[in-house]
Amino acid sequence: MTAPQPVDLAEAVIARMSDCADPRFREVMTSLVRHLHAFVREVDLRPEEWMAAIEFLTATGQACSERRQEFILLSDTLGVSMAVVGLDQARALRCDAGTARRATEATVQGPFYWEGAPDVPLGCDLRADGVAGEPACYSGEVTDTAGRPLPGALLDIWSGDGEGVYDMQVEGQGMTLRGRLRTDSDGRYRFWSIRPSEYPVPTDGPVGAMLKRMGRHPMRPGHIHLKVSADGHMPLTTHLFARGGRYLDSDAVFGVRDSLIVDFERHEPGIAPDGRHLAQPYYTVRYDFRLAPLRDPTGFR
Amino acid sequence: MTAPQPVDLAEAVIARMSDCADPRFREVMTSLVRHLHAFVREVDLRPEEWMAAIEFLTATGQACSERRQEFILLSDTLGVSMAVVGLDQARALRCDAGTARRATEATVQGPFYWEGAPDVPLGCDLRADGVAGEPACYSGEVTDTAGRPLPGALLDIWSGDGEGVYDMQVEGQGMTLRGRLRTDSDGRYRFWSIRPSEYPVPTDGPVGAMLKRMGRHPMRPGHIHLKVSADGHMPLTTHLFARGGRYLDSDAVFGVRDSLIVDFERHEPGIAPDGRHLAQPYYTVRYDFRLAPLRDPTGFR
Repeated sequence: MTAPQPVDLAEAVIARMSDCADPRFREVMTSLVRHLHAFVREVDLRPEEWMAAIEFLTATGQACSERRQEFILLSDTLGVSMAVVGLDQARALRCDAGTARRATEATVQGPFYWEGAPDVPLGCDLRADGVAGEPACYSGEVTDTAGRPLPGALLDIWSGDGEGVYDMQVEGQGMTLRGRLRTDSDGRYRFWSIRPSEYPVPTDGPVGAMLKRMGRHPMRPGHIHLKVSADGHMPLTTHLFARGGRYLDSDAVFGVRDSLIVDFERHEPGIAPDGRHLAQPYYTVRYDFRLAPLRDPTGFR
Repeated sequence: MTAPQPVDLAEAVIARMSDCADPRFREVMTSLVRHLHAFVREVDLRPEEWMAAIEFLTATGQACSERRQEFILLSDTLGVSMAVVGLDQARALRCDAGTARRATEATVQGPFYWEGAPDVPLGCDLRADGVAGEPACYSGEVTDTAGRPLPGALLDIWSGDGEGVYDMQVEGQGMTLRGRLRTDSDGRYRFWSIRPSEYPVPTDGPVGAMLKRMGRHPMRPGHIHLKVSADGHMPLTTHLFARGGRYLDSDAVFGVRDSLIVDFERHEPGIAPDGRHLAQPYYTVRYDFRLAPLRDPTGFR
């Protein structure tokens, strides 16, 4: 009748998986249980702290809805999402060691991706009437890692407005500043949207309270989101960040990569290169996306 | 422009807490972030596995309601709740090294505690009309660890019925088999309830799916729950388990302790020791609870 040793308890949980039919699931759960118990022991977790954790996780789940994903936000702000992106990229580099150039770097998807954005034509302006923010024209090409253009590659684009507010955060608002377009026969793309600015991640839920208690700011540097994909290539989820903006060195979700920081060239009002007339100052951005060849799903992945 | 090293990412998250005003919170979160990132690296977590984890945690939060706590069930089935109970008991033993006898062992609270059970008189029968199960009379005394009786100690009692179904699991059902009573002037208690039987933890939610995928059964051995408390003493949350029942060596929540397994003595129909007439066979159980002195909250706790 001795006090139970939590170290044995972790192994007792793991031993219960002897009939698990899925070796990968067993591997993941074994590591999870060991680290979870090691954490509890290491901090000598008190019952009232355990209950606070239960309440926090419950509130995080209950803050999720069709338009909000608080658990992704939790993962993002604890750097876990970016760790997973980094591991995936490391796998890609191992697989693609022979290719001439690296694929464009990935970063977090974040909690604001909304499946089913409208298909729009090349050169489209994603800005709706009255949307806050300065206009910016994004253009470039999509190639493979050997530099060959990828015609018909899909760009799925989303962002907040020029003040960093996403459509999903506004009750009742439909899709805004979102669109899916395809590259032309030379692999080129071009669209108008806003020049992104810094904004806070949602702070009115459990994750916001956690950040506050951690003594952290909730800000992200200005960025626009893109998923880029093409047949036979690894899909890419990434951002373009605006050079010179604030919080590039302290992104609340640890998503910044140097290779994704781009220049927004400012222009006076007038006729843009695509013939569009701008009554206000506007920006142009050029960025080329490179996609890695599709990896064998039975191989390194 | 190198691939980010997740090991650095964990330290980057921790470094962001330099302005945290709560040293204990910082300590707990530092350990949590290190173990979380170590787990992700150790299993080389794939993006699709990460998304499955997000969806699992979200579903777990959304399965919680006024009458259901799926995150406690998750903690219970991963052995985390019992690890926390074990650490608390280890702290108590360090504090109470001088006392003659140990306090009664604690075990998990589980997901079915319902605050505000009715106050009932000593000797009360908690069984409502028609509740499934064989009657059992529980009696004994509540003392401190020196063996001194504790008059007016509170017992907050709950259990499933004789088939292991809790009131909270039945849509629309009010409190059943729950009650709060106080020991008499000699520290003695006595009440009637059912003889508990084995039952499965709820398997219709995300945790049930996890157990199935782990290759584990969801069963708990038969038990009745009690919270025992008295002024000036550490409150106790525990079970009494029925000796001879199934699953005592494979409790789905790892809650069994030898010292909490008790004999249910069977009797033929007739007059029970308290004068009650029983038309069916019944059981008697005797168990004495010992409470530790209240610890200094600024000390070991």
